[in-house]
Amino acid sequence: MGVVGSRIAMLVMREAYYGTTRFDDFATRVGITEAATASRLRELVEAGVLAKQPYREPGQRTRHEYVLTEAGRELLPVVVGLWEWGRKHTANRSRLQMVHAGCGAEAHAVVRCTSGHEVLLEDLAVRVAPRRVE
Amino acid sequence: MGVVGSRIAMLVMREAYYGTTRFDDFATRVGITEAATASRLRELVEAGVLAKQPYREPGQRTRHEYVLTEAGRELLPVVVGLWEWGRKHTANRSRLQMVHAGCGAEAHAVVRCTSGHEVLLEDLAVRVAPRRVE
Repeated sequence: MGVVGSRIAMLVMREAYYGTTRFDDFATRVGITEAATASRLRELVEAGVLAKQPYREPGQRTRHEYVLTEAGRELLPVVVGLWEWGRKHTANRSRLQMVHAGCGAEAHAVVRCTSGHEVLLEDLAVRVAPRRVE
Repeated sequence: MGVVGSRIAMLVMREAYYGTTRFDDFATRVGITEAATASRLRELVEAGVLAKQPYREPGQRTRHEYVLTEAGRELLPVVVGLWEWGRKHTANRSRLQMVHAGCGAEAHAVVRCTSGHEVLLEDLAVRVAPRRVE
C-alpha cells in the first residue's frame, strides 16, 4: 500500500480518474519526467490499481495504455480525500476543486454508513465480522 | 504527504481514531517495536496530524501523549478508505469492520457532494475555484 500514498502516485491516479491513459499524457499533465512517469506507472500497475494494455493505431507500432482496474476505481475516496487534505494542509495550494458534474456542488470524501448516515469520528466503532466460509 | 500513506502509519492513525494516546499503547496495539513506534509517531507529528503533549500523573514523571490535531481528524475518510481498500485488495485480511455506532451499519469512505448526492467516478468533474483575497 506504500506507493498508493505517495503524492506523485496520487497525482498520476487523479489523471487516470480524469480519463488519461497514455504515457505521454501522464508525463505532461502531471508535469514529471519520463523516468518518473515510468516508475510511478510501473508501481501503480504492481499495486493492481492500473492495468497496462496494448493498443495500436492504424499505421503505428503497438503502444501501451494504462487503464483503471476495479481496485483502482475503488481507491477514489482515498485519492479525493488525500487531495483535499493536501490542498488544505500543505503549501501546495491548488485552485482546482472537485465537483459533482450533475449539480455543480463541491465533492468531498466522507465516511457514511450503509443506512445513509454521515459517520463522524465520534460515531465510528469497530466490530469483528462473522467468519466467512470460503 | 508521503508518510501519511504508509501502511504502518495508517494503523497508528487508526489507533489514534479509536482513542489511543500513549506511546506504549500504540506499540502494543499496532504490534510494532518501540523504535518503529517512535519513528511513526515522530513522522505523524511532523506531518501535523498528531500533536505531542506533556501529561503527568500524580507521583510520576512527566510523560507525553499523542493527540489528534484538526488536520488529523480531517484525514479520517482517507484512513477509512485505505483501510477498507487494503482489507479487500491485499493479503492482509482483517475481520474487523468499521461501523456506525449509532445504528450498527457498516461504514465506508465515499465521495459525496455538498448537495447530498453520491459522486461516482463518472460524475466527478474539476473546476478552477474563484481566486480568494487573503
